[in-house]
Amino acid sequence: MTSLLNRYMERTSRRVDAVLERLLAPEAEEPEAIRKAMRYSIFAGGKRLRPCLVAAGAECCGGNAGRVLKTGAALEMIHTYSLIHDDLPAMDDDDLRRGKPTSHKVFGEALAILAGDGLLTLAFETAAANARECGLTGSATAELVKVIASGSGTSGMVGGQVADLGAEKWRRRLPRARAARLLEYIHLHKTAALIVASLEAGAILAGGTAAQRRALRAYGRAIGLSFQVADDILDVVGDKKKLGKKGSDAANQKLTYVSLYGLDRARREAAVLTRRAHAALRPFGRRAWLLRDLADYIVTRDR
Amino acid sequence: MTSLLNRYMERTSRRVDAVLERLLAPEAEEPEAIRKAMRYSIFAGGKRLRPCLVAAGAECCGGNAGRVLKTGAALEMIHTYSLIHDDLPAMDDDDLRRGKPTSHKVFGEALAILAGDGLLTLAFETAAANARECGLTGSATAELVKVIASGSGTSGMVGGQVADLGAEKWRRRLPRARAARLLEYIHLHKTAALIVASLEAGAILAGGTAAQRRALRAYGRAIGLSFQVADDILDVVGDKKKLGKKGSDAANQKLTYVSLYGLDRARREAAVLTRRAHAALRPFGRRAWLLRDLADYIVTRDR
Repeated sequence: MTSLLNRYMERTSRRVDAVLERLLAPEAEEPEAIRKAMRYSIFAGGKRLRPCLVAAGAECCGGNAGRVLKTGAALEMIHTYSLIHDDLPAMDDDDLRRGKPTSHKVFGEALAILAGDGLLTLAFETAAANARECGLTGSATAELVKVIASGSGTSGMVGGQVADLGAEKWRRRLPRARAARLLEYIHLHKTAALIVASLEAGAILAGGTAAQRRALRAYGRAIGLSFQVADDILDVVGDKKKLGKKGSDAANQKLTYVSLYGLDRARREAAVLTRRAHAALRPFGRRAWLLRDLADYIVTRDR
Repeated sequence: MTSLLNRYMERTSRRVDAVLERLLAPEAEEPEAIRKAMRYSIFAGGKRLRPCLVAAGAECCGGNAGRVLKTGAALEMIHTYSLIHDDLPAMDDDDLRRGKPTSHKVFGEALAILAGDGLLTLAFETAAANARECGLTGSATAELVKVIASGSGTSGMVGGQVADLGAEKWRRRLPRARAARLLEYIHLHKTAALIVASLEAGAILAGGTAAQRRALRAYGRAIGLSFQVADDILDVVGDKKKLGKKGSDAANQKLTYVSLYGLDRARREAAVLTRRAHAALRPFGRRAWLLRDLADYIVTRDR
């Protein structure tokens, strides 16, 4: 990671954490357990990639990162809710996440489901409140909600997760070309869609143009895919202690870039996607320095 | 049910179903299974009470019921998502809902969780789109999202469900007065909060005043409670075949109005709440005829 990118991400992370701290402060009126479960997963670590993308998306369109932190927090809540639900026994059945016991292991399944539901709900409220603070019109506010919902719902992340669940059964029966299409569908929806939504949300809050949003979407799809390819690679070659999870994808014989293409071709694919991401940023000139560094970092990180 | 109320509810139900049919139409781009699961629960029956409340809330403030149908559909999606998640094995573990197998029985737990997540997400998108069509300002659009989120999140329905989960463990150890407070908390949040949100959403879309929204909140809290008291009574005395569920609350020894107060006092409580609901509607005059009839119907229905 370049030191500039590192500094930007650490600063954004601190600022977003302060916002999350306020938004998820204990409420005397609410059962203690639910806030506790929501906070446990929100503050379990993570680089706050999506909030950084909201901030960078706004900055690319001439906006101010400090004014879109709440929407960054909202996207982080949606990311966190998806991890909580994905880890459930009925889904991926993971006991550990970032080296810590998963939500359902600590709070039980019922509370884990509800903590996810609560985070998803609070996310929309938070983003809409941010739109109001930024003085958005009704139409732009509705557009912000729509972009976030599209990235996280059945046309985005939820759709990707459904396809991913099915993939385990299907992969042995699918011809290679169809498996490849399914894999891209899963990655584009399970990961890229929320990354795209983060960038576009920032752009909408900053009053970005249609062309700017289009460029950010292309960039987001590219890094969303490269992020997941890199993840698949890390799952195989990464230091397992560092990752804090048990390489469960390989153990479950899941459909991954590495299982389908092998390690070498997966690495080449990541390089192609990174070049595509850089190309998409051209119209933004210097303003996009962070997103450029980020595209490189995503394929070289250790998770 | 008066014939006027009956006609209004049937007409609204038909119109909302047409909207839901469009919003949940199969999407070539999405995995078939998720839409199927969402549609299964949305179209599993039900009186579309919340859409009627959105419509009636709008009409009380001089608005047009036909213009708020999408938000009615959104509230119905949230209600349905909550039923799907509540029925899960980790929660109430119900096999039947309205006489039909529950979502997780038909589609498996993973898809049931995701169908709920998908409905909740689509609900916010749909309400925001409706706000745009109604020409709401940014501020009013954010307010609409906030009211719906407050009613369904940890300060509302999710909070009520968390308290309800805990109630099973606690009730034997709680002194009677605290059990009564807990019970009211559960009912106000698990049921009344979303009813209040439906009414207020209609009022916001119709440009209602703060005083009108306050009156609708008071009415909503009263019928939300009476609805749940009536539900508890029905759970004990209702014809079980008609209800299509196995009186599971009683079987699980849950904290209910009947288990705490007995049948007679529960019935008196329902009557007091109904009078309170009528009182709250006074400022609206004739415009509130539907909500008046509804308050009476709620405590006399057979579910």
